[in-house]
Amino acid sequence: MADVILVLNAGSSSIKFCAFDVNGPDGLALVTHGQAEGLFSSPRFIAFDAHGQKTGEHAWGDGEKLRHAEAIAHIADFLRSHGEGHRLVAVGHRVVHGGARFTQPVLATADVVAELDTLTPLAPLHQPHNLKPIRIVAERNPSMPQVACFDTAFHATQAPLAQAFALPESVTKMGVRRYGFHGLSYEYIASALPRIAPDAAAGRTVVAHLGNGASLCAMLDGKSVASTMGFTAVDGLMMGTRTGSLDPGVVLYLFDELGMNAREIEDLLYRRSGLLGVSGISGDMRALLAADDPRARFAIDLYVYRICRELGSMAAALHGLDAVVFTAGIGEHSAEIRRRVCDEARWWGIELDDAANERGGPRISTASSKVSAWVVLTNEELMIARHTLALTQGAST
Amino acid sequence: MADVILVLNAGSSSIKFCAFDVNGPDGLALVTHGQAEGLFSSPRFIAFDAHGQKTGEHAWGDGEKLRHAEAIAHIADFLRSHGEGHRLVAVGHRVVHGGARFTQPVLATADVVAELDTLTPLAPLHQPHNLKPIRIVAERNPSMPQVACFDTAFHATQAPLAQAFALPESVTKMGVRRYGFHGLSYEYIASALPRIAPDAAAGRTVVAHLGNGASLCAMLDGKSVASTMGFTAVDGLMMGTRTGSLDPGVVLYLFDELGMNAREIEDLLYRRSGLLGVSGISGDMRALLAADDPRARFAIDLYVYRICRELGSMAAALHGLDAVVFTAGIGEHSAEIRRRVCDEARWWGIELDDAANERGGPRISTASSKVSAWVVLTNEELMIARHTLALTQGAST
Repeated sequence: MADVILVLNAGSSSIKFCAFDVNGPDGLALVTHGQAEGLFSSPRFIAFDAHGQKTGEHAWGDGEKLRHAEAIAHIADFLRSHGEGHRLVAVGHRVVHGGARFTQPVLATADVVAELDTLTPLAPLHQPHNLKPIRIVAERNPSMPQVACFDTAFHATQAPLAQAFALPESVTKMGVRRYGFHGLSYEYIASALPRIAPDAAAGRTVVAHLGNGASLCAMLDGKSVASTMGFTAVDGLMMGTRTGSLDPGVVLYLFDELGMNAREIEDLLYRRSGLLGVSGISGDMRALLAADDPRARFAIDLYVYRICRELGSMAAALHGLDAVVFTAGIGEHSAEIRRRVCDEARWWGIELDDAANERGGPRISTASSKVSAWVVLTNEELMIARHTLALTQGAST
Repeated sequence: MADVILVLNAGSSSIKFCAFDVNGPDGLALVTHGQAEGLFSSPRFIAFDAHGQKTGEHAWGDGEKLRHAEAIAHIADFLRSHGEGHRLVAVGHRVVHGGARFTQPVLATADVVAELDTLTPLAPLHQPHNLKPIRIVAERNPSMPQVACFDTAFHATQAPLAQAFALPESVTKMGVRRYGFHGLSYEYIASALPRIAPDAAAGRTVVAHLGNGASLCAMLDGKSVASTMGFTAVDGLMMGTRTGSLDPGVVLYLFDELGMNAREIEDLLYRRSGLLGVSGISGDMRALLAADDPRARFAIDLYVYRICRELGSMAAALHGLDAVVFTAGIGEHSAEIRRRVCDEARWWGIELDDAANERGGPRISTASSKVSAWVVLTNEELMIARHTLALTQGAST
């Protein structure tokens, strides 16, 4: 019977989970992970062990609906019965928005959850779903310690200039500023760099989180100085289905000239643009890299071009560039995208080591490269588990 | 009796004009300039000679209204009667938008004007007012050669990647792309650089047009490679009253959470933001530099910071940076802003020559500066007159 920390990442129709043994040989050790998905359409549960072997699976009938509460109950039952059984000592949650106040992980008391609820207007598509599981667990087990970890918190070190839009105070005081996201990923990378790449950890480093969502973070000595994501997760880099940076005048044009409403524009900017919109083929980089189609090539070219333009803006925030780190789905797995970014950014002094890049790093630049380049695997769930352990150690033992 | 080219720059409530003698000692020579302003509120006409001496003035009664046609008639009468009298041989017009088709100045025939009219949705606040005087002049004098010069045309050399947003083809084919503006200013600078700064003319040069509107243009060998302004003139740098770059998600937030409509948002982004919005004091840089107020200081800090971030993005488009050129109101007249930008951008290798900067250049970097810095006075009206002369030489002689 192992003591485990459960990490939950809940969306509108899915809940991802990981469980970490708090007494692993090197500290926290992944025990199992998986997800409940298609909650309101065709619910399905699947779980794997630490080696990726499937250890649990369940499908509900088509058309049957699973609410978040039942999905969490299923996950809890699975954990209790799985292997030798696990004893849950704390739950950590990924919460997209901590607003201006929550600049660190926090014990998710009822008061805290109520306050986080008031941030929903800042992230209407994610915040309510992130908070739901906290309430469900508290109801099932009021004494279970829970921790909320925020995607915005890591960027709290940014200077006010980096966070500001040029809007009147009446608007900015409502919370309209650059927050930056993917903070748990960047925090994990910052925690891993001293061991993998000490110079990059201490220097002027741009981390490229290239996943389904994508952003850059300019780090100085491991602290966030600037980020390409702004008020929402649609700004900055081109993504799988999101535009990235867009002239705000385009939004007004879509209203005025195309007669679109806010929901249609949101759908266009978040779900029908990016790699998918430009290629007309797919929002999945692997599919585009495999496609022999000029639109796919143009979409990839634009993806790389926008990364390199924003890399210049990040370097300007750092007053120079010592290292570039690739992470997340595309950053970790696509040697081709890494090669193209490094080639386009060669003028900075990045000299790619092709063989190392094909192997996946960690160092993918040559020994003589002025600016070093790296691949570092991110682990947001482990970061949440660490925070949860740190904040609940007293309560859970 | 001198042959003159009249240059008109018409807005919603004002018409600026310049007249150039086509037989000046060094080619085109400014004869007179001025404006009719407050057309629909309290109309006023004022004119100066080439040395800035007032040579004409007229005020209509308060509450009296002057239409564009009457204002142009007044300007034409002034030219005819002024000094020894001027014979108008051609009229050049500043037109904000040339769309995808007009990548060079063009004879403004009725067909061309009709086609330019179809671009109004791309620049609803400016295009109709720019076109009005062309029609008025054609009506008064059908045989008068007229030329339309576009603020977008200089940027036509940009690669498709620099012009593209990550939007679906169905949206981009309606003309939603980055056009860039201030093109006549950049074109003039590009024409002046070979004489003033040959290395900057041939190199990787970023021109900072810092006026009431503001943008950067990345030039390689005098050709536009990228620009901070996008689909509209609100994108990119922070300006006197405009936001510059803004997360498109902010626009949706203003709709959804603040219940603003498109006109209110347009007013906020174009007229109540930028230096004015952030400082709460003024959109005029001179007033802010003179103010002893922390909000004024923050507004100036943000203005400089955003220039330097975008400078990084421009340099990335150029694969490096050889020179920076300041122009337009603030760029030409504020040694303080130039100094602050160059200090913040020192890491690129810009070494400011303080005395030269105070004198206003043209070269404001030291002889040993790796990246050179310059002040070059722009002259959009002369650029329009040159194009007008070149396109109408046959017709007007």
